[in-house]
Amino acid sequence: MNSSKSKTFREKLYVIIFEADTPKGKLFDVALLWLIFLSVIIALLDSVPIIHEKAHGWLLIVEWCVTILFTTEYVLRIYSARKPISYIFSFFGIIDFLSILPTYLSLFIVGSHYLIVIRILRFLRIFRVLKMARYIGASKVLLDSMTASRHKIVVFLEMILTIVVLMGALMYIIEGPENGFTSIPRSIYWAIVTLTTVGYGDISPQTALGQTLASFVMIIGYAIIAVPTGIITAEITRQSGQSSNALVCKKCKNDKHDADAVFCKQCGAKLDC
Amino acid sequence: MNSSKSKTFREKLYVIIFEADTPKGKLFDVALLWLIFLSVIIALLDSVPIIHEKAHGWLLIVEWCVTILFTTEYVLRIYSARKPISYIFSFFGIIDFLSILPTYLSLFIVGSHYLIVIRILRFLRIFRVLKMARYIGASKVLLDSMTASRHKIVVFLEMILTIVVLMGALMYIIEGPENGFTSIPRSIYWAIVTLTTVGYGDISPQTALGQTLASFVMIIGYAIIAVPTGIITAEITRQSGQSSNALVCKKCKNDKHDADAVFCKQCGAKLDC
Amino acid sequence: MNSSKSKTFREKLYVIIFEADTPKGKLFDVALLWLIFLSVIIALLDSVPIIHEKAHGWLLIVEWCVTILFTTEYVLRIYSARKPISYIFSFFGIIDFLSILPTYLSLFIVGSHYLIVIRILRFLRIFRVLKMARYIGASKVLLDSMTASRHKIVVFLEMILTIVVLMGALMYIIEGPENGFTSIPRSIYWAIVTLTTVGYGDISPQTALGQTLASFVMIIGYAIIAVPTGIITAEITRQSGQSSNALVCKKCKNDKHDADAVFCKQCGAKLDC
Amino acid sequence: MNSSKSKTFREKLYVIIFEADTPKGKLFDVALLWLIFLSVIIALLDSVPIIHEKAHGWLLIVEWCVTILFTTEYVLRIYSARKPISYIFSFFGIIDFLSILPTYLSLFIVGSHYLIVIRILRFLRIFRVLKMARYIGASKVLLDSMTASRHKIVVFLEMILTIVVLMGALMYIIEGPENGFTSIPRSIYWAIVTLTTVGYGDISPQTALGQTLASFVMIIGYAIIAVPTGIITAEITRQSGQSSNALVCKKCKNDKHDADAVFCKQCGAKLDC
Repeated sequence: MNSSKSKTFREKLYVIIFEADTPKGKLFDVALLWLIFLSVIIALLDSVPIIHEKAHGWLLIVEWCVTILFTTEYVLRIYSARKPISYIFSFFGIIDFLSILPTYLSLFIVGSHYLIVIRILRFLRIFRVLKMARYIGASKVLLDSMTASRHKIVVFLEMILTIVVLMGALMYIIEGPENGFTSIPRSIYWAIVTLTTVGYGDISPQTALGQTLASFVMIIGYAIIAVPTGIITAEITRQSGQSSNALVCKKCKNDKHDADAVFCKQCGAKLDC
Repeated sequence: MNSSKSKTFREKLYVIIFEADTPKGKLFDVALLWLIFLSVIIALLDSVPIIHEKAHGWLLIVEWCVTILFTTEYVLRIYSARKPISYIFSFFGIIDFLSILPTYLSLFIVGSHYLIVIRILRFLRIFRVLKMARYIGASKVLLDSMTASRHKIVVFLEMILTIVVLMGALMYIIEGPENGFTSIPRSIYWAIVTLTTVGYGDISPQTALGQTLASFVMIIGYAIIAVPTGIITAEITRQSGQSSNALVCKKCKNDKHDADAVFCKQCGAKLDC
Repeated sequence: MNSSKSKTFREKLYVIIFEADTPKGKLFDVALLWLIFLSVIIALLDSVPIIHEKAHGWLLIVEWCVTILFTTEYVLRIYSARKPISYIFSFFGIIDFLSILPTYLSLFIVGSHYLIVIRILRFLRIFRVLKMARYIGASKVLLDSMTASRHKIVVFLEMILTIVVLMGALMYIIEGPENGFTSIPRSIYWAIVTLTTVGYGDISPQTALGQTLASFVMIIGYAIIAVPTGIITAEITRQSGQSSNALVCKKCKNDKHDADAVFCKQCGAKLDC
Repeated sequence: MNSSKSKTFREKLYVIIFEADTPKGKLFDVALLWLIFLSVIIALLDSVPIIHEKAHGWLLIVEWCVTILFTTEYVLRIYSARKPISYIFSFFGIIDFLSILPTYLSLFIVGSHYLIVIRILRFLRIFRVLKMARYIGASKVLLDSMTASRHKIVVFLEMILTIVVLMGALMYIIEGPENGFTSIPRSIYWAIVTLTTVGYGDISPQTALGQTLASFVMIIGYAIIAVPTGIITAEITRQSGQSSNALVCKKCKNDKHDADAVFCKQCGAKLDC
């Protein structure tokens, strides 16, 4: 009897904590998002010297209150989850754990409590509260595009890496420590700053030869940004095309058909739309 | 009788002020655009110290003249509009009101008269005077592309926000106040400057670890610009395709014709649009 | 008789100067390109202080020799052109004239001889010497894409202009002259530097509010670069598609058909490919 | 007999050194990649002053060991290669030779040993060890896209070159040496820094006219990045489309199938690839 009641309580908790469809569940999620927002803002404010001096005491109290609430919530999540182990090692399970850790760590390691900004990752739950389907659809297209492009992106990054190491070493030899290129790793940092068109200007070539090579790096960087853009665009165009057609094969459930397909490309059955 | 005459006068005013098809209406619009242009230029010039010293008096007189003209025009617009209330709360109605406000406000609040540059928004009326249809078509494709992509863009911005907050906090811990990262909000500002590849160089990492993390942020920023570009490009391609698709062949129902097609490309039948 | 011989001479000159198909014509064009290259390099070198001091005399002699050669060539071009007037007012005719002007002008106006770098525009003739058709095809696709997108680009530039004027004025009010924002035009310059992600860092916001607004401008700039890219990409995709199909209607000579067209979209005649 | 045995040994060596399919061959390749990685890291570390001082001796020993190993490997490669000459003049053959050269050169020329970072190019062999086909496919699409776009890219680079030379000369005349534009080549360097949106800020315009022209260059740079992006994107879209087009239905001749299609989407017939 007790066990059954407890089970019912766990069930109720589960619906409130893990789902956002019931009024209570939605209220819980919205309250949680505000708490996360509040605790991130506090971490940001606490790092501003003038606010730290005047209000550190108050901010510390709020941080501890929020952390205790989050700890309680974490325990309740484990308690009410249908598969506690798989929750604990899920993406959000790990984030939830890491979100409460820094405050406790700050008792032993000074400064570590700034790490609570990791709570911003909990904020990704916002898509649960918003009309979810559309955003999940949008995320799916973006993630699928990136996944489908991963081989091209690895090749592209290897290309970038090779260019910046070679250019960094060349600039180190050409410009040398007297012009700010104090070591090859630092010259590689300069090459990345230049190739990505960030251009801080903290290190910049001074010699004519160095400026010529730098111009070369800039034009390469300016031109090859076209490559990842082309990769991703081609994928998104393809994914958008696929996801917008509602053609699902009744026989084999394959849902990746072109808009003009008449027969299923997997099993050859006729498609009715 | 008087009422009827007044109504005619209102009608005439309406045609002149709100339409650009009659010679008088076009003249009014062109004159208005020049006045807007003049008053924005005056606001710009008045802010230049050397001009402010020498010609502030004259510029002030012109500004007041233009403001009085704009006020008169605003009153006449309300008077002649068919639905005054809906004009007042329309986009251009609000802009027209905000455009005359700063000059009057400047009597009470010093410096507020620079806000008259908001008049630049009135300048968007220029598309009324130019051959309108093509530009409105172009704007429509751009706006529709952005509207259709809004869910993907929200997901993308949430992604950016999460990255800059996490990177900002990490850099604050790594570099610290002695290297210019005086607070987490300021470090987040640095992360935005870096991720968007702006790279002022007013704050830049000094430690080896900080430069490594910064390189990482730059490459992310350089690569993920592909994402909004991909989203918008895929949409514009689709929108451009669709907007030319009003043409459907009556014989074979083919609806994929170019905008300038006269005959169906599949069966050769004449297209009526 | 004399007239006829003179005509033959003009004809020969025409073939050498204006065409690149005969050995002599090609030799002439290649020699001309080397001369242009030489004279631009001289202008660049002459502006370097250390070279100017040591070799100004020699460089001046070379410049005058090249200019006299170019003047002779210009006179011969007018003499041998089939329609001298239309040559003079053609794109290359004007460039050819402007290319010899600065050296003569330098007799009266000091420093104006640096303008001879305009000769770089003559260098565009290089596509005549290279295997022309492919490059002209490539240029055509690029130019057609830009022409077809011009309405969208005008709308986009108007959008940019409105944003930078408003943001410039706002930053002038927020940051003020004490932080480098000395006037609204200068603040607009800052807004352009930031929006285009150039980010010199010669002017950068110092206040928290200014940095927040600047972050906003950067993210806008980072995101809306997607718009021109999307516009141009959609056009190039369309243009490439069109230009790569060799479908030309035998009846009406229309060559802009889709790759899957069976009938001419202009006259309805069947297409044989 | 001796010759036959030697041949077998050569064969065995060939399989180990040039192929990655056998366990020994894979082990050899993985060990080689780690050695390359190690030797590049050593070159980077050795350039850092503080490490150079303390550990230069040790690093030098490791460098010589690695170089001797690489030399042995190079000799064995030539010995075991089926066509030694064609290996020596292949891309990787030249890289392998250049990779051992700097260490020997450093005996005669001080500082030249930093050039061993060229070994990073040997690292491109990593795609041999990874599941190769997919990455080679991805590289192929990227390289084909660039090759197919080369005419458009040459036209685009010529366009860029013309703009930066003209703008550089104009800025030299407008701003002059007193504002950092000390020569036309340096002004061209500034124009490249600005047009590519790198924006170091080491040279930046100070006069109103210069800033206006600079704004113009920035907006051009911001807009025309769309051009290479559009070119490459259009190509990748086309290449991706083509590469999946090996599938042609034997029944209805439809050749537009996805890469994972098993049945024809038009007639439902089975596809044999």
